[in-house]
Amino acid sequence: MTTTDTGAPAPSETVTENTTHGYHKQKDEHLKRLRRIEGQIRGLQRMVDEDVYCIDILTQVSASTKALQSFALQLLEEHLRHCVADAAVKGGAEIDAKVEEATKAIGRLLRT
Amino acid sequence: MTTTDTGAPAPSETVTENTTHGYHKQKDEHLKRLRRIEGQIRGLQRMVDEDVYCIDILTQVSASTKALQSFALQLLEEHLRHCVADAAVKGGAEIDAKVEEATKAIGRLLRT
Amino acid sequence: MTTTDTGAPAPSETVTENTTHGYHKQKDEHLKRLRRIEGQIRGLQRMVDEDVYCIDILTQVSASTKALQSFALQLLEEHLRHCVADAAVKGGAEIDAKVEEATKAIGRLLRT
Amino acid sequence: MTTTDTGAPAPSETVTENTTHGYHKQKDEHLKRLRRIEGQIRGLQRMVDEDVYCIDILTQVSASTKALQSFALQLLEEHLRHCVADAAVKGGAEIDAKVEEATKAIGRLLRT
Repeated sequence: MTTTDTGAPAPSETVTENTTHGYHKQKDEHLKRLRRIEGQIRGLQRMVDEDVYCIDILTQVSASTKALQSFALQLLEEHLRHCVADAAVKGGAEIDAKVEEATKAIGRLLRT
Repeated sequence: MTTTDTGAPAPSETVTENTTHGYHKQKDEHLKRLRRIEGQIRGLQRMVDEDVYCIDILTQVSASTKALQSFALQLLEEHLRHCVADAAVKGGAEIDAKVEEATKAIGRLLRT
Repeated sequence: MTTTDTGAPAPSETVTENTTHGYHKQKDEHLKRLRRIEGQIRGLQRMVDEDVYCIDILTQVSASTKALQSFALQLLEEHLRHCVADAAVKGGAEIDAKVEEATKAIGRLLRT
Repeated sequence: MTTTDTGAPAPSETVTENTTHGYHKQKDEHLKRLRRIEGQIRGLQRMVDEDVYCIDILTQVSASTKALQSFALQLLEEHLRHCVADAAVKGGAEIDAKVEEATKAIGRLLRT
């Protein structure tokens, strides 16, 4: 999963509505959340740089982790509501694949 | 992309050994880790912005959370080795306070 | 949530196939898993009783927690595949309620 | 880590104070907690057996996991207060080994 090619144009799939993903409508809210988390991480760098007491840094780490998991949960809810529900409506084998994929993603979140 | 005034002199408390905290020696390594995590969070913003598939975003969230917890664990290890061990050597009531404080911090990490 | 009235007959809803829940088919496997976890918890009691070294007890706690989460994930997968997918096919407002309910359950698992 | 030889008498090391571990004094409280968790796991078996709704079972799994982590935290606190602090007082290389061991145990708890 590369996140580097920002110079490249966005893939054409993002243009048509059919292929946008579940979280499309909440995009602005997601970006706002992530920018706040980025700010927390920069805050952590300042804390380390200024020799803040370890325990206070750990408290800030917990807050950042919680914020990341809260973002993940919202993304997951939209994914279930759109992608997984769509697969269920379409019928066929796709729903099994979608559910398995979502469960694995939840498992990765749980293990961190 | 650091936000710290590195040109400014380090706060005087970092000069004397008594007031520096356990993670002092690994400072550069910590800052490097945190900058990498900051890069991951910016990568998440790009992914949302480019309508990347939800599951791939969730995988990246898991990686960032794991990196944050790994940073927390290292900080905690240094805290136990220095601050908590120092309190034990000094004796008195401080060790109880330090251990309780560390346990609460671990509890906060566990709950996220 | 009490689970005590085992003397009472199983509710009639368990008889007809329509109302059984997603995990019905894996029932035996689930019960086997849970009995194994129960054995792990009894093992923990023996360890405490025999003054086993703290760290070894903590390792066993991690194993039990992992086993519980693994059970939860399997239950969740079956729930998504059956209950949530069924709601999606039926259409209407139920899918939103089901997805919100599942997300909240995942959130509770994440926070532990 | 076997926990099976319950027929055997407790090892003699539990008699002298030097070899008992940090959690010794809270032993009864620990055993009470673990028996309560064992009851929760048996409750889960009843729920599965009676086809209780998946989400309610997941809620009970979260409660059991939380109880296990709470037990682990208390054990860890006593371990830090006794075994780790003792090693710090004794001086030498043992404190490094003890802190590393404790950190690894915390890491295992975090990853579940």
